[in-house]
Amino acid sequence: TQQQNKASKRLTFKERSALCGNAIAQKMFQIMEDKQTNLCCSADVKTCDEVLALAENVGPYICLLKTHVDIITDFSEDFIGKLQGIADKYNFLIFEDRKFADIGNTVKSQFGAGIYKIASWTHITNAHSIPGPGIIEGLRQISVESSKGKQVNHGLLLLAEMSSKGNLATNEYTKTTVQYAEENNDFVIGFICRSKLSSDPTLINMTPGVHLEVKGDGIGQQYLTPNKVINQNRSDVIIVGRGIYRSENQAEAAKKYRDAAWKAYQVSLK
Amino acid sequence: TQQQNKASKRLTFKERSALCGNAIAQKMFQIMEDKQTNLCCSADVKTCDEVLALAENVGPYICLLKTHVDIITDFSEDFIGKLQGIADKYNFLIFEDRKFADIGNTVKSQFGAGIYKIASWTHITNAHSIPGPGIIEGLRQISVESSKGKQVNHGLLLLAEMSSKGNLATNEYTKTTVQYAEENNDFVIGFICRSKLSSDPTLINMTPGVHLEVKGDGIGQQYLTPNKVINQNRSDVIIVGRGIYRSENQAEAAKKYRDAAWKAYQVSLK
Repeated sequence: TQQQNKASKRLTFKERSALCGNAIAQKMFQIMEDKQTNLCCSADVKTCDEVLALAENVGPYICLLKTHVDIITDFSEDFIGKLQGIADKYNFLIFEDRKFADIGNTVKSQFGAGIYKIASWTHITNAHSIPGPGIIEGLRQISVESSKGKQVNHGLLLLAEMSSKGNLATNEYTKTTVQYAEENNDFVIGFICRSKLSSDPTLINMTPGVHLEVKGDGIGQQYLTPNKVINQNRSDVIIVGRGIYRSENQAEAAKKYRDAAWKAYQVSLK
Repeated sequence: TQQQNKASKRLTFKERSALCGNAIAQKMFQIMEDKQTNLCCSADVKTCDEVLALAENVGPYICLLKTHVDIITDFSEDFIGKLQGIADKYNFLIFEDRKFADIGNTVKSQFGAGIYKIASWTHITNAHSIPGPGIIEGLRQISVESSKGKQVNHGLLLLAEMSSKGNLATNEYTKTTVQYAEENNDFVIGFICRSKLSSDPTLINMTPGVHLEVKGDGIGQQYLTPNKVINQNRSDVIIVGRGIYRSENQAEAAKKYRDAAWKAYQVSLK
C-alpha cells in the first residue's frame, strides 16, 4: 500500500475541494488550504471553560476542533453558542467525536435528540461501521431533517482503523468499512484511519494517536508521528489530543503540530 | 454450534449464580430465578416520565431495564433517583446501553464523568470490543474507583454479535470478543449476542432484536422470536424494545414476552 501511495501523484486539498459533492467536505478542504493547516485538535477536557480557552488558544492553527460533549461536567446550550462564535472567528469546523455505534433507529435519537442535540451544532461526527449500513442511513435521515428536508447537512466519518492496542478494525472489517463509505459518499466524507484507504479523492483521511514523541499511555494508546502519518501513510489530517491540551502553552504546541503536519503534506506533494 | 449446545445439559440460572465471582452477575441470576423472568425491557422512549411510567408498568415482569439516557430530552439527577426507587420496588437491575466504543482513556471520562455520571447509577453497561482490551481496562478502573477502590462495582457486557443487517460483528471479530470476555470475567459478565458463545457458565448471553412477530423495521433491524433465541440458540435473556414500549398495554405485552422467554428456558432445561 505504501508503494502504491507513493506511485500515484497526490492531489492537493484545493483540487480535492473542487471534486466534493458534500458541502462540509468541500468547506473542510477549503479551510485547510486557506489556513494552511491539516491539524485537528482534540478538546478532551472536562469543563466548558477549558474547552473554550483551548479553542481560543489553538483556533488560528487548526482546521477542526474535536469535542466529546459527554465528558463535560457543566455542559449547557450557552456553551455551544460560545464555541460556535470562536469557530466562526478563527474559521474552523466542529467535530463531535461521538463514535455512534448502535442500530439506525437508536442513533437517530442519539444524534438528533437528548440533552445534547448533536445534529443541531456539529459539522462533522463519526460512527463505527460495525452495526452495518443502517447506522449511516439513520444518521443521514437526521442530517436531512435538520437541513429542512433538502440534503445532508453534515459530514460523517467512519472508523475504519483505530490506534489502540489489540483493536479489531483490521483486514475485512476495514475493507467493508471503506466500501460502506464509498457507497454513501454524499454523506460519508472520510475515515478515522491510520493511512489512506480509498482512491476516492473526496474522502478525507484523519488519523488520531499522533504525538511528536512516539510512546504509549499505559492503557492501549499507541502513537505515530506527523511525518509518518501524512507523508508516509498519506493520511490528510492529524488529530492531536494530549500533545496539545496538556501543554503549558497550547498555542505554541498547536503551531508546532500544525507546522510539522503541513510540512509533511507539502513534502508528499513533490 | 446448535448441536453442541443441545448435546450439553444446560445449567440453571440458580446453579450459575453460585459460580459467579462478579456480584452483579450473581445478583442478575438470582433475580431471574426469584422472579422467574429472563426478560430485559428497552426503554427507548424520550422523556423521563415515559421511562418511569414504562418501568412501573413492566417492573413486575423484568429482570433488567435497559436505558439510553442520551435520548432523553429532559434528563435530570432527580430522574435517576426515581428510577432507582422503582428498580428497588420491583427488584430489577438497570442497564445503560451506552455501547462504549472509544479508547480506554476516553471511556473513563464517558463512564465516570459528564452530565450523566453513568457509573454512579447503572448496574450494567456495555462496550464494543473494537478498540481492543484497553476499553475494558478503562471502564474497570472507573468501576473500581466508584466502589471506593476495592473491586469492580458493575457488570460489563461486550457486543459480540449484532442484530442489524450487514453488521461486522462476525467470525474472528466475535471469537476475539469472546476471548477478551473470558480473560476479564471478573468484570465482563456476558455478551450482547445472537446465541450462546462461551462455555464459561458465569457469562450471561443477552439477545436484542426480539419480537413475537418476525419482521424488520426498514432501517436494518432483523427480528428473532423468544423461542428461537432462548431454546434453540441457548441465549439467556431476551431484550425487547418496540414490542413492549409501543404496546397500548405495556404490562400485558411484557407479561407475554416474559412468559414466552421463560417457557423457552424451561423447555431447554429438559
